Amino acid sequence: MKKLSGISWRDFKALPLLEKGDYFQGTPPHTLIAQQFTREKLQELCALATRIKRINKRRDGANFLKTLLCDKRAMLYFAQPSSRTYLSHNAACQILGLDTMDVRDSKTSSEVKGESPEDTIRTFSSYADMIIMRHPVGGFAERVAWMLAHTNREIPVLNAGSGADQHPTQALLDIYTLERSFEKIGGVDGKNIVFVGDLMRGRTVRSLAWMLSLYKDVKLYFVAPEPLQIGQDILDLLDAAGTKYVVTQDFASTMPIADAIYMTRIQDEWDAEGESSTIDTSAFSIGAEHMDIIKDTTAIMHPLPRRKEISTDIDNDPRAVYWRQMRNGMWIRAALILTTFGRQDEVNQYYDNYKPGA
Amino acid sequence: MKKLSGISWRDFKALPLLEKGDYFQGTPPHTLIAQQFTREKLQELCALATRIKRINKRRDGANFLKTLLCDKRAMLYFAQPSSRTYLSHNAACQILGLDTMDVRDSKTSSEVKGESPEDTIRTFSSYADMIIMRHPVGGFAERVAWMLAHTNREIPVLNAGSGADQHPTQALLDIYTLERSFEKIGGVDGKNIVFVGDLMRGRTVRSLAWMLSLYKDVKLYFVAPEPLQIGQDILDLLDAAGTKYVVTQDFASTMPIADAIYMTRIQDEWDAEGESSTIDTSAFSIGAEHMDIIKDTTAIMHPLPRRKEISTDIDNDPRAVYWRQMRNGMWIRAALILTTFGRQDEVNQYYDNYKPGA
Amino acid sequence: MKKLSGISWRDFKALPLLEKGDYFQGTPPHTLIAQQFTREKLQELCALATRIKRINKRRDGANFLKTLLCDKRAMLYFAQPSSRTYLSHNAACQILGLDTMDVRDSKTSSEVKGESPEDTIRTFSSYADMIIMRHPVGGFAERVAWMLAHTNREIPVLNAGSGADQHPTQALLDIYTLERSFEKIGGVDGKNIVFVGDLMRGRTVRSLAWMLSLYKDVKLYFVAPEPLQIGQDILDLLDAAGTKYVVTQDFASTMPIADAIYMTRIQDEWDAEGESSTIDTSAFSIGAEHMDIIKDTTAIMHPLPRRKEISTDIDNDPRAVYWRQMRNGMWIRAALILTTFGRQDEVNQYYDNYKPGA
Repeated sequence: MKKLSGISWRDFKALPLLEKGDYFQGTPPHTLIAQQFTREKLQELCALATRIKRINKRRDGANFLKTLLCDKRAMLYFAQPSSRTYLSHNAACQILGLDTMDVRDSKTSSEVKGESPEDTIRTFSSYADMIIMRHPVGGFAERVAWMLAHTNREIPVLNAGSGADQHPTQALLDIYTLERSFEKIGGVDGKNIVFVGDLMRGRTVRSLAWMLSLYKDVKLYFVAPEPLQIGQDILDLLDAAGTKYVVTQDFASTMPIADAIYMTRIQDEWDAEGESSTIDTSAFSIGAEHMDIIKDTTAIMHPLPRRKEISTDIDNDPRAVYWRQMRNGMWIRAALILTTFGRQDEVNQYYDNYKPGA
Repeated sequence: MKKLSGISWRDFKALPLLEKGDYFQGTPPHTLIAQQFTREKLQELCALATRIKRINKRRDGANFLKTLLCDKRAMLYFAQPSSRTYLSHNAACQILGLDTMDVRDSKTSSEVKGESPEDTIRTFSSYADMIIMRHPVGGFAERVAWMLAHTNREIPVLNAGSGADQHPTQALLDIYTLERSFEKIGGVDGKNIVFVGDLMRGRTVRSLAWMLSLYKDVKLYFVAPEPLQIGQDILDLLDAAGTKYVVTQDFASTMPIADAIYMTRIQDEWDAEGESSTIDTSAFSIGAEHMDIIKDTTAIMHPLPRRKEISTDIDNDPRAVYWRQMRNGMWIRAALILTTFGRQDEVNQYYDNYKPGA
Repeated sequence: MKKLSGISWRDFKALPLLEKGDYFQGTPPHTLIAQQFTREKLQELCALATRIKRINKRRDGANFLKTLLCDKRAMLYFAQPSSRTYLSHNAACQILGLDTMDVRDSKTSSEVKGESPEDTIRTFSSYADMIIMRHPVGGFAERVAWMLAHTNREIPVLNAGSGADQHPTQALLDIYTLERSFEKIGGVDGKNIVFVGDLMRGRTVRSLAWMLSLYKDVKLYFVAPEPLQIGQDILDLLDAAGTKYVVTQDFASTMPIADAIYMTRIQDEWDAEGESSTIDTSAFSIGAEHMDIIKDTTAIMHPLPRRKEISTDIDNDPRAVYWRQMRNGMWIRAALILTTFGRQDEVNQYYDNYKPGA
């Protein structure tokens, strides 16, 4: 096994994404990039998430879950504001009885006193058994994991979004939603997944597209106005994995064949000078008028928050799974956190003995 | 039973207050307006609050209480700042072992990203089993309950203050304080309750006055400078209920007959242009010089925070119950939250078996 | 025993520090100033902290600890920002199962509404069984303890930093770090402790110097540029206690004989007009080049955050104990909080029965 403590920061930083992942599987494991997951690991996590979700429905089950990590403490360090990612991780911790502490200000008192970011995070780590962190600087979560691996108190780091690139748990919840949506129709293999909207700037789409390349015969459709189309780097990754894809501006043509439609918001907060406002995005939205065209089994997804790309008219259509998708984030994060501490077998044993209803 | 899921928002919104209440008694129940309570329900809650309070005094009792809702999670969504209401609800949750998450910023990251208020609150509700919310917009809590009733995941909504109108749990704690204060002198029926101060703008007084109309032979005295006197709408409600009242500027005349004196603060934060500062309010305050005039059993109350309308000189007088009143808020809220989840019988059984001292 | 409820604020305020301490040993006890501790009490707390730390290593031990105060609630009132002190106390509470509520804004809604600071803190105390507080005004924590002692609901006050003077739990964690560092080399008695840096303005150094005067044959070295040298008031205290000390600017001469080197940061946030920037502090720092000169058993300490006075090059040297020192704060605070509620014997019994490994 490759050890994060045995490599220099310079060498580590220079590694390609797929090789970096090997360094995160140690004791403790870190969750830093989407590319560190294998299909086997994804499916283990999905199965565990479902068991946790089912056990949690009964009062005695919920009480059992809360004993699993009640000897641990997690630090939620959110240097960038994010209600839903924060709340979802917080809820996942609470389900497992894991105590949480949070630092949500971007500017802490210590920074004012001239402390280095590394010292600040090492301070926060001193009081916790795990760090769940969001940070505006790309790669900072990796730097933290590397830094802690070089101390005598390495604790697991869970990347809850760093910079413009990585947000691995969002990709996990998307995969989990697809797995559950296709549970009774043969699973994810062989499905047509249509991505719509701002594909250039959404890190969500980038990570999920890569994860889908781990499945067999999946075909991806990237539907976007030309200036917001998916990046060539992702297409290169898909080519290398042998995953088929179509790049198009024609949303209507993809609707009838879509097994999942993944809508996204125009991320104009990344605009340099309001360029998004000059793009006509009206054709990249979905509403009641499209519901007859798409299949009965199609999953309509969205990482939320949404604007007008999904009409609220379809919120109660059974194919609209975006609210369930959000709640799935809580379950898959609980599965991930439990696995980080290596206690997933206790859930499996409980589940096999008690068989809570689905 | 009338179902919130079976009525349009337009029709619901147009209902008179007393009819709205019928829609909040479903499964799950919502707590949204003072007018939804019956006298029977008030007294059940008061009895339960006292049992919780007594059980909590012993360590084993406190441990028992913490098992009651430890499989649940509450979202405390405070879009308006409020230390004491927030803390009181938070403490009530902790007493019952209910995990809490909070959003206390008025401006969340999602609002910045163009999300609708309905989507934001539905997001927050995704991770919780109950929402406790304070919001500056009148009626927004009702809107949220109605909206959730039209999803497949309706969770109870507890209104911790919305707009200028409703703050039902404040009225509950006031009733509870009166019930306890008059426990050994025949209860609330037949008592003279004197309200003093800014009666026009305090939603507290408006709600409590209505609740008192549920009791027999209560007489209310509204003592205020003329521009801050109680609104005609409340007097109409009292007339309809057959509750007697007196409207006066003469505080002194009411002191000797008062069973409770409910002081309030001039709420100048609602002033359009500082008009409060032109009103002479000196006669609408209480201090050591009045303590000989009022009865030995009179309860002096205040929703707090206070300014000068109550002198700190009387803080240690046994008739000054405003600090106890604040703590009562914690117990009555615990009773309300427990009842919301339908688990009050577990407290009653425990109490009957163990009989903790008073 | 001297009772806080039996003395006027004016008389209490005028007492010398060493006499004030007698008023904090009641039921409940308060932790307000470094000078209230005896050597015996310090060593009891250190022994308890180590037992808690060891018990916490095992999962069943951690679960046991969480039952100790799970019927209590602490209010963390931090009117001054402080990540590390806040987090450390928070973690200590979590270890003991003590629920926490926090108010971290300096300006609460009640202050806006014209409430007095005393009323605000009495409000916060209403919902809690203990207050842990940091406040910019010197002596305010004492005022709060005195005020609560004059109500019918006195709860313990733990001073987590008030004004420029007192931060007693920081001194406790420093003593605990020294006790642990010297555990196998005869304890703190007879050791040479070298303080370096901004000794004039660091309340940490002032409190620790006083606590060290409780030990036998300790010798203190104060190494600082002249304008930042230790205050005469501390030297007077040491003289009165018969504790030997040296005041010098020559760091190098003290290195070979130092048993502990306590580095500090230039606290330029207290500068009136940037005067610190004119002082040459380069000689008052430590790095790899000094590690051959100092003894193998020397403990290098720092209250953190640091700037350049300690090079990160020595972070992994076993003599660099400042990170451990930070974590020690969590254990000694847990010991202190547990003792405040008088439940330390439960830990001692558990420890004696189960003998968790060191």
